[in-house]
Amino acid sequence: MAGVLALAGGVGGAKLVWGLAQILTPDNLTVVVNTGDDDEFHGLHVSPDLDTVMYTLAGMANPETGWGLVGETFQALAALQKLGAPTWFNLGDRDLATHIRRTELLRKGSTLSHVTEQLCQHLGVRCRVAPMTDARVRTTVTTDQGVMPFQEYFVKHRCEPQVKDLVFKGADWALPSPGFDKALREADAIVFCPSNPFVSIGPIMALQGVRQRIELFKGPRITISPIIGGEAVKGPAAKMFRELGEEPSSLAVARRMSGLCTHFVLDNVDAALVPQVVKLGMQVEATNTFMTTPEDKIRLAMFVCGLAGVSLK
Amino acid sequence: MAGVLALAGGVGGAKLVWGLAQILTPDNLTVVVNTGDDDEFHGLHVSPDLDTVMYTLAGMANPETGWGLVGETFQALAALQKLGAPTWFNLGDRDLATHIRRTELLRKGSTLSHVTEQLCQHLGVRCRVAPMTDARVRTTVTTDQGVMPFQEYFVKHRCEPQVKDLVFKGADWALPSPGFDKALREADAIVFCPSNPFVSIGPIMALQGVRQRIELFKGPRITISPIIGGEAVKGPAAKMFRELGEEPSSLAVARRMSGLCTHFVLDNVDAALVPQVVKLGMQVEATNTFMTTPEDKIRLAMFVCGLAGVSLK
Repeated sequence: MAGVLALAGGVGGAKLVWGLAQILTPDNLTVVVNTGDDDEFHGLHVSPDLDTVMYTLAGMANPETGWGLVGETFQALAALQKLGAPTWFNLGDRDLATHIRRTELLRKGSTLSHVTEQLCQHLGVRCRVAPMTDARVRTTVTTDQGVMPFQEYFVKHRCEPQVKDLVFKGADWALPSPGFDKALREADAIVFCPSNPFVSIGPIMALQGVRQRIELFKGPRITISPIIGGEAVKGPAAKMFRELGEEPSSLAVARRMSGLCTHFVLDNVDAALVPQVVKLGMQVEATNTFMTTPEDKIRLAMFVCGLAGVSLK
Repeated sequence: MAGVLALAGGVGGAKLVWGLAQILTPDNLTVVVNTGDDDEFHGLHVSPDLDTVMYTLAGMANPETGWGLVGETFQALAALQKLGAPTWFNLGDRDLATHIRRTELLRKGSTLSHVTEQLCQHLGVRCRVAPMTDARVRTTVTTDQGVMPFQEYFVKHRCEPQVKDLVFKGADWALPSPGFDKALREADAIVFCPSNPFVSIGPIMALQGVRQRIELFKGPRITISPIIGGEAVKGPAAKMFRELGEEPSSLAVARRMSGLCTHFVLDNVDAALVPQVVKLGMQVEATNTFMTTPEDKIRLAMFVCGLAGVSLK
């Protein structure tokens, strides 16, 4: 392959990835997705970010919730609750099918990469979607209310506990997945989607050798800031910045990406920050990064591909 | 406990068991259910007969299909099909919750007995329902189209292949479940529900020591014939008799139960067979055994309890 390697977490990343998929040929796009917030519910392996990306690319995602499927029903979850199972993690009936199938194939010996490839194929997703790793990496959040798995922090406690530290258990020894490895070798450009820098991009960067390989990557490496006007479009990124001792801003994001990226894209409302980000050694571009409509997503994807210098379909 | 130990397979057995549950106190009824036709679908442990009995007792069973739940939806199954999974075995969304929960608890180390107890408790089933064994026993059908697991014969091939032999894999070494063992020691009477003598009662009798323990059981042992007028009310029992070389009739059932039972209940339409069954050494009673309405089930249950000599609630 050549083209773009896009690194993504959940909703924000999926939006840009959807835009990229509209303008690049499938063999010019590899999406590598955070699996640090994977977890097991009812004995089933759930990969929230992989599914958000996959469902978004398949046109099945629920645009209102930011998780799950459009037109979803919740009969099984209601029945699980009746049977005494903890049901704070929302799982729709059709979404459950994904987790059931994934778990079955994993138990039979498939890698998460291979399972993801199969699921995408059946859902008609044509570009390559790969987990960041086939190893087990789990994001653990140290908070004022104790240490907890990411989904417990994120869903059960609605990001309310104060974050003191993040640990990506298993990341030190986890190798990039084969698809990630191949894209790191062959891609023309790397795009850091507007995903949470701590818990979406963080786990990917923590994998064995990844940070160094990206630092040494020859082509353009472009970050799209997930912070607009000091706030995250969605999710706890801004709150995490504050709790970890920094004012949330595109500048704070840029500091984290310094050395990793050649280009930094921030929103027009943050144009005043451009000179400071330039000093960090990146080419900086301001544009409209807020995505709601399909046109927004395609427009930002076009902008990014322009910086990446990759040919469109 | 004391009271009745009822041995059951699926639909026919569940009907009589429901009747028994209406007239006996919960501690006077233990239902032991065939698990020879358990199987795994999508990596989930499915116990069709246990679920039919459990759902029937909980008032949740679908009376029209003979399997699954009333008002069931099939969103997950449709999604599994889209993901390339084989979906010839019907699994509704709420039914799936049972299999997901059961599988999770089994994987965590619970026995099938303990899981069944938990599920029943949450569904409000008050009498004791136990699997025949906690060991793995699998009914395998040798047919003119090859050897296949029971559900494949029963559901996928709709009982169409010609049966040449039945094997209850694992039964020789499988001990009765703790609940079955206790009931065999303490019950006042044993009731063989009107279930398929080959694939519902057969696996239970094949367990280690069970046949001998029932032969030596001191109290009444009562069979209700599942064959009425030479035909099974439901399922392949009559077809199996023919294919295994015997005319299907209550007499043929009685021959199989000879030595195991003290009492044999057949339908009024088969009253002419009474003298021949008497010769097999059992007390024979003719009554209306065809159950459709709740009243039918309670009436037959009362009749059986009269023979068993157990006190009603």
